[in-house]
Amino acid sequence: MRLYLAGPEVFLPDAAQVMAAKSALARRYGFDPICPGDAEIPPAETPFEFGLRISAVDEEMMNAADGIVANLTPFRGIAADVGTSFELGYMCAQGKAVAAYTNVTDDHFARTMAFYQGAVRRAEDGYQRGPDGLSLEDFGMIDNLMLHGGITRRMGPVTVHRAAPDALYTDLTGFEACLKALAAAG
Amino acid sequence: MRLYLAGPEVFLPDAAQVMAAKSALARRYGFDPICPGDAEIPPAETPFEFGLRISAVDEEMMNAADGIVANLTPFRGIAADVGTSFELGYMCAQGKAVAAYTNVTDDHFARTMAFYQGAVRRAEDGYQRGPDGLSLEDFGMIDNLMLHGGITRRMGPVTVHRAAPDALYTDLTGFEACLKALAAAG
Repeated sequence: MRLYLAGPEVFLPDAAQVMAAKSALARRYGFDPICPGDAEIPPAETPFEFGLRISAVDEEMMNAADGIVANLTPFRGIAADVGTSFELGYMCAQGKAVAAYTNVTDDHFARTMAFYQGAVRRAEDGYQRGPDGLSLEDFGMIDNLMLHGGITRRMGPVTVHRAAPDALYTDLTGFEACLKALAAAG
Repeated sequence: MRLYLAGPEVFLPDAAQVMAAKSALARRYGFDPICPGDAEIPPAETPFEFGLRISAVDEEMMNAADGIVANLTPFRGIAADVGTSFELGYMCAQGKAVAAYTNVTDDHFARTMAFYQGAVRRAEDGYQRGPDGLSLEDFGMIDNLMLHGGITRRMGPVTVHRAAPDALYTDLTGFEACLKALAAAG
């Protein structure tokens, strides 16, 4: 079973080492890892064209994979990386095996509350809203319901682990728990 | 052609009116709009279960749609809404028509620079990195390359318009430009 390993760790200075560690762990559980960043991207005339080539290669990798493990640890803000979120949706639509982990224990609601510094109240329409009027999801999920819901409805594992701040994107405890669950599910 | 209208405006206090305005505009261009929030969600025993039901209904709507127009205006931070990003990936995987708009003119790179308050430098590996070591994408795209790239590679329109701050999620100029482009493409 080929697993696409998605997550914002591709942006780390030591991305290659982190992806190698994730790949080694995936193999230990009997999976064949496919990592964005593995392929040589052919050079392009403009940065925009180069971005399109990476998009094409990553989609090809997902098309070749049987499942995805998505790192949904919040990235540059309170929510998951949007690239990883796109990829999770892409794999859900293909009916493939889906799994996710996060390295923070505050759920989506708690993080949104923190974003509004607690200035959230129940509006007349029954929704909890921030000072900007935007409503908060309070479903006990790790992120937006399309992400967590898409996985849970497909019987995929969603694992939560509190990583040390300096290991926010490198702690593989939650990742390994996903592998264990996927291997057990066969 | 049935168009799924995705975006964080579902969180607005006047979401119903905004979705009605988007739907009316979509019909004017000959499309049949499908909006998250349109369907009655059956009550559930727990908030978590209720979240799963919304996820199921929204996926059914996407399965029934022939295309998507995604509002990728930054949401509670510097990036697009992750739910919308998931949905865009979902529709890309299904080979459907895809389009997106954003109501801010600063691109992904400019917003990430602002996130780091400009404290970005070119590292020895050639990448531009923030003080946290994370690399920045600088591809002239409105958001992460999987989103913008996924649309452009499918010949879908990506439109950019600067909305007034108090109309960040309600200005439909970019949305209408998407409809126009989709209608012209047939």
